[in-house]
Amino acid sequence: MCQNVQILGVDRDGAFAQYIAIPESVAWKTGKEIDHSVASIQEPFGNAVHATFAGEIADMTVAVIGCGPIGLWAVGLSRISGSSTIFAIEPNHQRLDIATKMGADYVINPCEVDPVQKVLDVTEGLGVDVVLEMSGNPQAIRQGFKMLRSGGRVSLLGIPSRMVELDLANDIIFKGATVLGISGRRIFDTWYRTRRILEGGQLDLKQVITHTLPFERIHDAMEIMKSGDCGKIVLTFD
Amino acid sequence: MCQNVQILGVDRDGAFAQYIAIPESVAWKTGKEIDHSVASIQEPFGNAVHATFAGEIADMTVAVIGCGPIGLWAVGLSRISGSSTIFAIEPNHQRLDIATKMGADYVINPCEVDPVQKVLDVTEGLGVDVVLEMSGNPQAIRQGFKMLRSGGRVSLLGIPSRMVELDLANDIIFKGATVLGISGRRIFDTWYRTRRILEGGQLDLKQVITHTLPFERIHDAMEIMKSGDCGKIVLTFD
Amino acid sequence: MCQNVQILGVDRDGAFAQYIAIPESVAWKTGKEIDHSVASIQEPFGNAVHATFAGEIADMTVAVIGCGPIGLWAVGLSRISGSSTIFAIEPNHQRLDIATKMGADYVINPCEVDPVQKVLDVTEGLGVDVVLEMSGNPQAIRQGFKMLRSGGRVSLLGIPSRMVELDLANDIIFKGATVLGISGRRIFDTWYRTRRILEGGQLDLKQVITHTLPFERIHDAMEIMKSGDCGKIVLTFD
Amino acid sequence: MCQNVQILGVDRDGAFAQYIAIPESVAWKTGKEIDHSVASIQEPFGNAVHATFAGEIADMTVAVIGCGPIGLWAVGLSRISGSSTIFAIEPNHQRLDIATKMGADYVINPCEVDPVQKVLDVTEGLGVDVVLEMSGNPQAIRQGFKMLRSGGRVSLLGIPSRMVELDLANDIIFKGATVLGISGRRIFDTWYRTRRILEGGQLDLKQVITHTLPFERIHDAMEIMKSGDCGKIVLTFD
Repeated sequence: MCQNVQILGVDRDGAFAQYIAIPESVAWKTGKEIDHSVASIQEPFGNAVHATFAGEIADMTVAVIGCGPIGLWAVGLSRISGSSTIFAIEPNHQRLDIATKMGADYVINPCEVDPVQKVLDVTEGLGVDVVLEMSGNPQAIRQGFKMLRSGGRVSLLGIPSRMVELDLANDIIFKGATVLGISGRRIFDTWYRTRRILEGGQLDLKQVITHTLPFERIHDAMEIMKSGDCGKIVLTFD
Repeated sequence: MCQNVQILGVDRDGAFAQYIAIPESVAWKTGKEIDHSVASIQEPFGNAVHATFAGEIADMTVAVIGCGPIGLWAVGLSRISGSSTIFAIEPNHQRLDIATKMGADYVINPCEVDPVQKVLDVTEGLGVDVVLEMSGNPQAIRQGFKMLRSGGRVSLLGIPSRMVELDLANDIIFKGATVLGISGRRIFDTWYRTRRILEGGQLDLKQVITHTLPFERIHDAMEIMKSGDCGKIVLTFD
Repeated sequence: MCQNVQILGVDRDGAFAQYIAIPESVAWKTGKEIDHSVASIQEPFGNAVHATFAGEIADMTVAVIGCGPIGLWAVGLSRISGSSTIFAIEPNHQRLDIATKMGADYVINPCEVDPVQKVLDVTEGLGVDVVLEMSGNPQAIRQGFKMLRSGGRVSLLGIPSRMVELDLANDIIFKGATVLGISGRRIFDTWYRTRRILEGGQLDLKQVITHTLPFERIHDAMEIMKSGDCGKIVLTFD
Repeated sequence: MCQNVQILGVDRDGAFAQYIAIPESVAWKTGKEIDHSVASIQEPFGNAVHATFAGEIADMTVAVIGCGPIGLWAVGLSRISGSSTIFAIEPNHQRLDIATKMGADYVINPCEVDPVQKVLDVTEGLGVDVVLEMSGNPQAIRQGFKMLRSGGRVSLLGIPSRMVELDLANDIIFKGATVLGISGRRIFDTWYRTRRILEGGQLDLKQVITHTLPFERIHDAMEIMKSGDCGKIVLTFD
């Protein structure tokens, strides 16, 4: 929420450079006991931590829309935090398989099944308590609001590339819904939480890593990412 | 948030009937010391109480968009609850005059002045902490999000008659905003609060009453309401 | 928090009678799929649900002081809700064994080990984020405050039989602590949560049942309870 | 809540020195439009801001116990933030007079009137929603808990010089009370709030200044402070 925030790779040059200088006050020290591959993916994992814990999650019914790495971790975090029923919604089958491993009770491919209808069927018409929107897709966002229970909460994290039309009257106002914009993380609260989860060992972050390639194959890694048939890709150095 | 809510005049016949039956459990007894004209307008006043107190208001900068009766009371409630700067935004001059009486620091006619620019100028570019959206007008809603500070809160109460296009990325997600759908009130928490405010006497609800007519002139009252050149209109019986 | 609350067995005759009449509005229907033994112990389980979820619990370090049935369930609820480290503190060895089964990371017998020192050692001198006080023992309560982290939260549920001396300055004020009195449950929010947990099957309430006796042996059951060498005792009918 | 906090005048040498060095990161710049006498008393005023706004205050019934400068400001802050009924409890008549000026509805001298009985009488036996304890006196603290409503909140700020005996069962647990330890302020949230209140002009901090003396008379000032017959004393330089 800082007025003068500068994100690496967005507001200033990113971290594909050989050296990078950042203010000491924003550096976060990763313990030696943390595996290098986990250390390299903990930045986006922090987004998942921030989004999932932005409100009550224990004992809630949760729909995670969009199962890229952040969505997959949100499934896992909800699981270890006591969510009662977790829906993972995502068109890619490989990602849905990982969502199952992360603990989703229901995986829904929206190209095959109407996700709103499915969620309402399982919840006896009530809808879910919490929607974690990680896709940024306008139609998926609207579906998220339709599957939300009265009095429920939506965390918006996925970034739409254009304006989104919403039915504010029926989907937010009459429902008495709470909508939270989730960006980045809370400094440093989210990092302390992230460290604990890594140390606690209840969640295996590496389940989201689908490919490990030597650094020389960075361009192959980029192609795989563009195809969408992957979770996280980790590059290694000798 | 009740799944089976029935609103008088919306989901079942309304209160223009000579007699009306409601469940005892939802009846609220108004004290004899409350003036009849105040008693007759406390229902919508409860909406203002619920919307204004849905989050922190003391010491906040607040923009109230749409100054019908509910918006005007929201101005007054913010004033007596310690808001630091209050903007009232409304195209009708008569209503803006009442907003000034209710305690608005700045009254803005959006047909004459760009309300977003004005709010940003006064708040040194930050925007307001709280937006209370009472108009339901799609453009006004978008302006509300543009004048919101990062980390701010929007209470949506005005009901749009159609879908509304929003810039979710810039106006909710990157801002880390909280959006609350406000409908009806909390039973009975809001009513206890309402009673206290009426008894406390810090806010004169009647400032919002612009016309008092005998019951026989109900059709005239309806015409005046349609013109928009009024606050609340009270009908009296001999 | 009701001003006129009447607790069965406290404010009016209790449920050892052959028949009992209660207002329909406070009756809670238990599903047929719930085992009778679980149905019979869900009332105190509701206390554990209310106490554990009175504030954030995911990712927190938690000390549960006093491991009678409610304390044991609080251990289990913390475990399935993502607590990072759970300490169970209780002088009875049998109960500590059950606490281990419910998921405690550290079980501490305060007759053998200084619980404050042990908690501070494990937490690197910080203390725990959350103390759930279920013993009502004055010394244990004071120890609870001493093992609390600055900014932490104490839920007081165990009922002391006399006045308790506290070091308010060092243990509450300078720590910026939050202390919550926990009594009964929230009607009906706690019951909905309880139902979900029972249906979800993540927590086996029956682990806390140490004895099952026929109804005719009720006096034996009372003797066992007085000895303290038990968890819950369930009486059965043919 | 910092683990390594160092308070000037407590953990390290205080500000009666001719020069003092503090880390730049904790310095707060006071605007030139702020009167010097106000600037000199804004540090304790920040305590009052933090204590009063630690929970909901609008529309609440509030008892302020102990009307030194911080308590007096808490009365004023409650008044401008919409509290419905404010009780000020304090044995010194001069301070009670200032409490009246700051907006207290009832001023109670506990040497003359039983403050618990008085508060219960006015609130129809319910007690107050909020107690702001600024005295640190053990008996006054116990009275504060007795005059608290079920479900109410106590902010403890006054520092007792010894252990305090409390009736935890009746005064915290069965009441479902929330107790908040209040120490210092939130950096920098409280300071932003403080600045706004000073700029807003709704509260005249200077009403609490009872004496203004030249710096040379610092020892007289100390004597007056010890007598208790004063609010704030400001020392001036030519």
